[in-house]
Amino acid sequence: MRDDGPESVSGEIILNVCTTCRDAGDPDPQAERPGAILARVLEAALAARASAGDPLPIRVEPVACLSVCKRPCTLAASAPGRWTYVWGDIDPATHVEDILDGLAKYAASQDGVVPWRERPDIFKKGVVARIPPFPRRDAAE
Amino acid sequence: MRDDGPESVSGEIILNVCTTCRDAGDPDPQAERPGAILARVLEAALAARASAGDPLPIRVEPVACLSVCKRPCTLAASAPGRWTYVWGDIDPATHVEDILDGLAKYAASQDGVVPWRERPDIFKKGVVARIPPFPRRDAAE
Repeated sequence: MRDDGPESVSGEIILNVCTTCRDAGDPDPQAERPGAILARVLEAALAARASAGDPLPIRVEPVACLSVCKRPCTLAASAPGRWTYVWGDIDPATHVEDILDGLAKYAASQDGVVPWRERPDIFKKGVVARIPPFPRRDAAE
Repeated sequence: MRDDGPESVSGEIILNVCTTCRDAGDPDPQAERPGAILARVLEAALAARASAGDPLPIRVEPVACLSVCKRPCTLAASAPGRWTYVWGDIDPATHVEDILDGLAKYAASQDGVVPWRERPDIFKKGVVARIPPFPRRDAAE
């Protein structure tokens, strides 16, 4: 990424939600996928927080595949200069507020690393992987 | 990442290697970790390719933890504008040349996505997760 351009919101977090995977044993192949439900519930919860005067700098971006197919629902949070995190085993019915609380801490952190004891349980148990921020060559050299 | 700066090598790929995890049942807690061996073997193989006139734009960056603790060795490849991939179950003794062949295709691709049939087996079987490139706001808006 050479330049984020004038529209850049440097603190914005991209939250990718995989919308393809089915729950194991889901009896209805036509049912709305859990990740599609999760994306919808996250958007609604973000809108509710914004209306309540507590906006979060998060943009939900559905994506066709995060290659974590055995642990739906799956999410990835990324932002410039921060560690990227991938989580699985997320339940849209019970985990959304905990996820937003955890992402508020991620947003407030300098590099995306939230102290272990401050993370919601779903971020501890559901972690699939994390990747360091891509090096800023101008800062590193 | 607002600017890669004048030293930027825009096509360079960062290859993070987790150097902490132990093999399951490893009897010797003092033994060199598999990821540390992997990083060393990758560096040597990259140097050998460069000496043979076939350099790859890859920088190996050891990292303390990729949070894929149950599938050592683990690797993550990332580059500006490309999908990030995380792989596990990597054997430093047998997989390094396949990994470099796969990364050469990753480097040659536009967005980091290599057609499935062209991927080495370890990239198919070992995939842990993938994350879309962070949006370039100047291009997207």
